[in-house]
Amino acid sequence: MRAAIAKSGTLRVDDVEDPVPGSGDALIAVKACGICGSDLHALVHAHKMIEQSVAAGVPVTFDPSRDYIMGHEFAGEVLELGPDTAGASVSVGDLVTSIPVVLTPTGIEATAYSNTYNGGYADLMRLSAALCMKVPNGLDHRRAAMTEPMAVGRHAVGKAHVRTGDTAVVLGCGPVGLACIADLRRREVETIVAADFSPRRRATAVAMGATEAVDPRDEPAVDAWRRLTGGTRPLVMFEAIGVPGMLDSAMRAAPTQSRIVVVGVCMETDQVHPFVGITKELNIQFALAYDPLEFMQTLADIAEGVVDVSPMMTGVCGIDGVPDAFATLGRPDDHVKILVEPGRGPAIEPLTSAGLAAD
Amino acid sequence: MRAAIAKSGTLRVDDVEDPVPGSGDALIAVKACGICGSDLHALVHAHKMIEQSVAAGVPVTFDPSRDYIMGHEFAGEVLELGPDTAGASVSVGDLVTSIPVVLTPTGIEATAYSNTYNGGYADLMRLSAALCMKVPNGLDHRRAAMTEPMAVGRHAVGKAHVRTGDTAVVLGCGPVGLACIADLRRREVETIVAADFSPRRRATAVAMGATEAVDPRDEPAVDAWRRLTGGTRPLVMFEAIGVPGMLDSAMRAAPTQSRIVVVGVCMETDQVHPFVGITKELNIQFALAYDPLEFMQTLADIAEGVVDVSPMMTGVCGIDGVPDAFATLGRPDDHVKILVEPGRGPAIEPLTSAGLAAD
Repeated sequence: MRAAIAKSGTLRVDDVEDPVPGSGDALIAVKACGICGSDLHALVHAHKMIEQSVAAGVPVTFDPSRDYIMGHEFAGEVLELGPDTAGASVSVGDLVTSIPVVLTPTGIEATAYSNTYNGGYADLMRLSAALCMKVPNGLDHRRAAMTEPMAVGRHAVGKAHVRTGDTAVVLGCGPVGLACIADLRRREVETIVAADFSPRRRATAVAMGATEAVDPRDEPAVDAWRRLTGGTRPLVMFEAIGVPGMLDSAMRAAPTQSRIVVVGVCMETDQVHPFVGITKELNIQFALAYDPLEFMQTLADIAEGVVDVSPMMTGVCGIDGVPDAFATLGRPDDHVKILVEPGRGPAIEPLTSAGLAAD
Repeated sequence: MRAAIAKSGTLRVDDVEDPVPGSGDALIAVKACGICGSDLHALVHAHKMIEQSVAAGVPVTFDPSRDYIMGHEFAGEVLELGPDTAGASVSVGDLVTSIPVVLTPTGIEATAYSNTYNGGYADLMRLSAALCMKVPNGLDHRRAAMTEPMAVGRHAVGKAHVRTGDTAVVLGCGPVGLACIADLRRREVETIVAADFSPRRRATAVAMGATEAVDPRDEPAVDAWRRLTGGTRPLVMFEAIGVPGMLDSAMRAAPTQSRIVVVGVCMETDQVHPFVGITKELNIQFALAYDPLEFMQTLADIAEGVVDVSPMMTGVCGIDGVPDAFATLGRPDDHVKILVEPGRGPAIEPLTSAGLAAD
């Protein structure tokens, strides 16, 4: 099969052996797979990620100096059900998605950030049949592939225990920040102030439900929040940028008694001023991923039109286009989310607001 | 009156003018005032504290390069009620305590960390009559003066939203850590693991209700917690040390999904590894002080014997002993809490376990 293969910080496209479904596996023909900012980051910083995971006591078997195939935001068609899948709730021909892990006899393993279970930047992948969720309501494969990033936002907002009367500031309008905005809107949070340097991402933030999106060089997000709300309502801030200094800057900008949800993944050592946190009794909640129920609810909400993901889907390309798409996503004004569709050519085609390619 | 006067990092004892009660004030004869670690810190780092408060957007009028008299853990006798105190609920002769702020026509002002309203390292002080709480149930002045530090612990534990089944680790057994332990015990938290280098403070931790107190050089606190609990129960950690590196070290040691309450005041820039927080979805709650209701409830609990503060009260001296007491408290094995009693000599006399001086 064709695949975009990462190894030691490089990305190449090549033909590799097809995966063979083992016990409990479903073999999937990938139909769409979103490119995640974490993949761009992991390509460069995989060793640091592993170092820090080990330091945090998380067991890691993944070796980024050997070949691995990323892509954890996928939807695909079931081609074949392997041995021991008699009780599976999906059938050959179904369009499915899954959380990006597989069940193995020795435990749960990650797909994509793995040398064993390839991700969705490939024609085919193995998933656990028991974890596959059938895409409901006739939802197309592109929107189905958006389940994963949108579930990240749902989980982060859930971690904030948002209550009636809360207001929100979202720092950073990449896919994670946008997913937070979509979920804040779904929960009917009245004031959602977004901030990003990129005009395109600010426009997308408003399309996803932000009350207002500001360029922090013109007006800091918390100033805009104060202007819109009077500054007396409880505030939850989402740090969805993940570069050093952002947490400290959010802590300094935060009004007293605010909550800050850290959902941007900062791999570097970072500096903070605890006294600022103490003076204002801030709460900092770190958030990671989602649970399977949140993933399933997100899929249902997209399928039923509760959450419209189309403003975020800006481009589509084939597997051969993945290296170029990685480079393109480094320029935040060019694209928000690029989907990989096996079988397409390498060119990145724009998607219309209805999530359709020009062809 | 006699007073221990701080100025630009130095502490001297001298005679100063008696305060005159203004509108709404009660004039108090200080009976006991605890020496707080924050005062030791503030003496040296007051400028840094102010710098960071200003950076955090907190207005500050206090100037530590001019004379100020610290001491915010006080109990005293009402000597006189000033003008406009007709509705006060306290009378001349009452033993009272108060949160360490005063109401002024222009707003709420701090006592002690103030060039205007002196604290309790003095014979006399002005308090707002409306904020004075009469010490109930015949409680003595020494235990009454412990209300303030114990309220800090009550508030910090309250901020942690401790639930049935939660377990606790308290890092640092100075008065703040001990106050957290006392309140965890009051809330019937079953397993409370304390950690401190000092044998005396570890013994005090057990006397205040810790299940076990460990020397972290022999066994890290979280290892002891794992040994005692099996490591599967929800954990709240209290960081009550407040030196750089402690927050990062607590984050690294914390099991996944733990809450960390930061109650130790770290004035320095600190380094953290956000990726560790994200991987384990930690929650960090910064906690400061208490509200008036918590203060009042703490006073009632001490007066009714719900919380026994006597193991923490280790020494007593007069105002002339304050500089020596500050130096003594820099050695954590010598004392836990030294109380200043105006009228006593400069020597630091040990207190018995019943909170009584030898004389």
